[in-house]
Amino acid sequence: MNKQYQEYNHQLLIKDIIQTPLAKNLNQKIIYSDKSVMSYTTFYERVAKLANVLTSMGVKAGDTVAVMDYDSNRYLESYFAVPMIGAILHTINIRLSPEQILYTINHAEDNLILIHNDFIPLLENIKDKIETVTNYIYLSDDESSQYEELLKKASSKYEFLTFDENTIATTFYTTGTTGQPKGVYFSHRQLVLHTLSATASLGTSIGQNFTQSDVYMPLTPMFHVHAWGLPYIATFMGIKQVYPGKYIPDNLLTLIDKHQVTFSHCVPTILNMLFNSPKIDSIDLSNWTLIIGGASMPKELVKTGLDKGIDIFSGYGLSETAPVLSLAQLTPEMLELCEDDQIDIRTQTGRPIGLVDLKIVDESMEEVKSDGISRGEIVVRSPWLTKAYFKDKQNSANLWRGGYLHTGDVAYIKDNGYFKIVDRIKDVIKVGGEWVSSLELEDIIIQHNKVKEVAVISMSDKKWSEIPLALVVSDFNDVQTKKEILSHLKESITKGILSREGLLLKLKFVESIDKTSVGKVNKKLLRELYSMQQ
Amino acid sequence: MNKQYQEYNHQLLIKDIIQTPLAKNLNQKIIYSDKSVMSYTTFYERVAKLANVLTSMGVKAGDTVAVMDYDSNRYLESYFAVPMIGAILHTINIRLSPEQILYTINHAEDNLILIHNDFIPLLENIKDKIETVTNYIYLSDDESSQYEELLKKASSKYEFLTFDENTIATTFYTTGTTGQPKGVYFSHRQLVLHTLSATASLGTSIGQNFTQSDVYMPLTPMFHVHAWGLPYIATFMGIKQVYPGKYIPDNLLTLIDKHQVTFSHCVPTILNMLFNSPKIDSIDLSNWTLIIGGASMPKELVKTGLDKGIDIFSGYGLSETAPVLSLAQLTPEMLELCEDDQIDIRTQTGRPIGLVDLKIVDESMEEVKSDGISRGEIVVRSPWLTKAYFKDKQNSANLWRGGYLHTGDVAYIKDNGYFKIVDRIKDVIKVGGEWVSSLELEDIIIQHNKVKEVAVISMSDKKWSEIPLALVVSDFNDVQTKKEILSHLKESITKGILSREGLLLKLKFVESIDKTSVGKVNKKLLRELYSMQQ
Repeated sequence: MNKQYQEYNHQLLIKDIIQTPLAKNLNQKIIYSDKSVMSYTTFYERVAKLANVLTSMGVKAGDTVAVMDYDSNRYLESYFAVPMIGAILHTINIRLSPEQILYTINHAEDNLILIHNDFIPLLENIKDKIETVTNYIYLSDDESSQYEELLKKASSKYEFLTFDENTIATTFYTTGTTGQPKGVYFSHRQLVLHTLSATASLGTSIGQNFTQSDVYMPLTPMFHVHAWGLPYIATFMGIKQVYPGKYIPDNLLTLIDKHQVTFSHCVPTILNMLFNSPKIDSIDLSNWTLIIGGASMPKELVKTGLDKGIDIFSGYGLSETAPVLSLAQLTPEMLELCEDDQIDIRTQTGRPIGLVDLKIVDESMEEVKSDGISRGEIVVRSPWLTKAYFKDKQNSANLWRGGYLHTGDVAYIKDNGYFKIVDRIKDVIKVGGEWVSSLELEDIIIQHNKVKEVAVISMSDKKWSEIPLALVVSDFNDVQTKKEILSHLKESITKGILSREGLLLKLKFVESIDKTSVGKVNKKLLRELYSMQQ
Repeated sequence: MNKQYQEYNHQLLIKDIIQTPLAKNLNQKIIYSDKSVMSYTTFYERVAKLANVLTSMGVKAGDTVAVMDYDSNRYLESYFAVPMIGAILHTINIRLSPEQILYTINHAEDNLILIHNDFIPLLENIKDKIETVTNYIYLSDDESSQYEELLKKASSKYEFLTFDENTIATTFYTTGTTGQPKGVYFSHRQLVLHTLSATASLGTSIGQNFTQSDVYMPLTPMFHVHAWGLPYIATFMGIKQVYPGKYIPDNLLTLIDKHQVTFSHCVPTILNMLFNSPKIDSIDLSNWTLIIGGASMPKELVKTGLDKGIDIFSGYGLSETAPVLSLAQLTPEMLELCEDDQIDIRTQTGRPIGLVDLKIVDESMEEVKSDGISRGEIVVRSPWLTKAYFKDKQNSANLWRGGYLHTGDVAYIKDNGYFKIVDRIKDVIKVGGEWVSSLELEDIIIQHNKVKEVAVISMSDKKWSEIPLALVVSDFNDVQTKKEILSHLKESITKGILSREGLLLKLKFVESIDKTSVGKVNKKLLRELYSMQQ
């Protein structure tokens, strides 16, 4: 025997994620609200059917297929079928304005849209301006919906090809406060590595771990950053999954109860919504573990969750990062702490997961001290970060300046690797070399009983470059009150929760604080009014 | 801002494995027998020092650095430092004959050898024939050993470069029954992916899981297939690790006891050795989880282990596969089974871990049925298999024929994905299209009380191509006994543990069964004597 052989180079592809459960957990269930229950075998057949439907409608490798749907088995099917035929999955953010949705569809150059009937009105006014879409498939829970009819007719066999792992698998858009939405994108390789590393970190932890005996249900819309990557992770583990459809608090609680859901994730707003549902007190949530992300988590919310027996903790990531960067899972020692101390950790931003090189740096990209005091911007490298904003060189260069992805989040880090976000970089005041968070200063000042309202902005200063200026609304606009507030600040410095640069704060009493149309403090206007040195 | 930026392409490198614990578990301990205790911080400094020592001795990227040592922190240091400077780590099998060791050193083209003083005599007779080695570093537990002296003088800073993830990181040799040892090799990418996927599978399981609260100690020599990959996994998790030095049963048990070791792995022989130690009954092993690999695990051994409270189960892999392919961890449902049924599963070869595409195929590469009866060869694809045997095209082509790595192991698989190895392919009898295991036939026949000894070989047959021939030693060489034995075989077929092809077995009484010099049945000679059709 001396024949030639081809060296085997494994490509990391989305199809790898589905292979393990199919080898092992054929009969495991995937549930869609109160509407359908299917086995992984059936799920995989439907993925193959969808692949055949898309192919027969002319979708080719490199094309973009968009989805507008609620959290459903259909959405999960598109998470696999679209990239597995070499096309790009565009998860459209249905909460954007019609004009923004139009912008993202045209910018992503979508070829086909899978759209739930509920969202057709949303497209009505913009449909004429859609440039590249040639086909639509209409979805609904109805057995006779176009989606179900097409699947029924399609073959359940599809030979999924092997191709370059760097092929783009998904894209979606992130919205800032200014400018158009920005497109991020992720390759097959990136999503497989994200799945592997997040599974390893979620699984091997002692506190708040995610394992093969869990029952998973997302409480985050699936258009939002791969619903944080968990549908891929849950499928990779081959566990029971529940997709809740449209978010109606009572229904969500019923599903958790009925299917004994043990693992979910959401933003604080959704959790608040559940806590305000009348049904909440009749449901046992003591086996429920919950990752909170997308916004900083108030301590009271965690306290309420813990009181209900929910094992609640923070996770952190961005649209640009696939998304998981860190998790605030408790170590065995931390699980011994009293509740208050645990809440403190559970509301932190956590520790980086495997393969995430996360640093807190100053403006010259030097790491700040891991002392829990020094502030800096979070910058990261890891194998699953968007390589750029799609068709946007300028923002891409800014995102990746210095070879690290800049999160725009300001944090401190402790020597045990736990870090906590305190502010957005645009709201930080750069006093000499040190960064002082305006949000933190506001939090401290508002605690003073003579302060009714406060906004902290930066003021230019010859010596320090910038110093903080506190605009305070109070019924006592006198020197004595000013002294009291500044002395209150000093105490925070003594306690070690505020850096000494806080002492440079100037305080100005104002009649009122200007707000934007949506009720947020209008810092831009305040800076224009007050920030020049006086 | 419109400056150019370089797209960030993350390379999966061994240095990624150490980065996570360094970010989080600086004070975690790495222990070497009763000799030293160091923190991860110190460990990393020693890795940097070793990197500096090797570089200063002229080791360059692409060079090969070999190690001959016991399981120690030094060995772990070489697992990281050598590949992290771009060199190749050659873990020399110290159990080979001096001639074979010489062959592997020359074949791997080693440039430098790190050698424990104990193994110097082993090299004495072959040293003149070593071709490429220009330097040796001598190791011992002595503080004044050359290794420790060199490290003391070296800087603890080293700027580990980023390079192509496909760079070879490790190599070692596998020995068959015939021919010279064959070299296998693994890239940085392969070892990182193996670490991630094995961590995900070991961690997310409910039964026999490996988590961040475990204390790890290998009971497998570190020259043996990256000690199954666990030192990389344990370091990635940032857990407490104990390296036991030379294997002395009493010392091993003392270390398990003293450091509260909770997770280890070994071959059956080592476990037997521990069970035979007088110390065994004074040690509480009820928190100990143990992977058994390298050989099939006798049920009695598992029973003894379970009686001592050890959570014992099988793992499977080859030198060619980095190595982990499958683990016999129990699912939540299986943990409810009675002990006998659990033992049955724990001694199976397990289920494939994530990203392992494992098939049981017949000679035409068609998958056999997942019925627990049909036999076939295990073939695999996964991202961490050796791409070839080093400098050996012929064996490489044979290993990878049909685009899958051929394990040479024959197994059956059940519909739950659990498979069990029953034989080596060279000992399988191909009856028509079906494979019958000679080992299984021997196991069944030996259970008959009139059978003293048995060997099953294949015999050529016009109709079936091959049929099994049982050579039986018995005190009752009569027709009645023959009938009884064949009827005993029939029962096994009725019970569903033997395929119907077993009925074609011919039985021949012999005076004795020929053995090789090491006491194994000499099947080669037996085939020569008996296998032609009569």
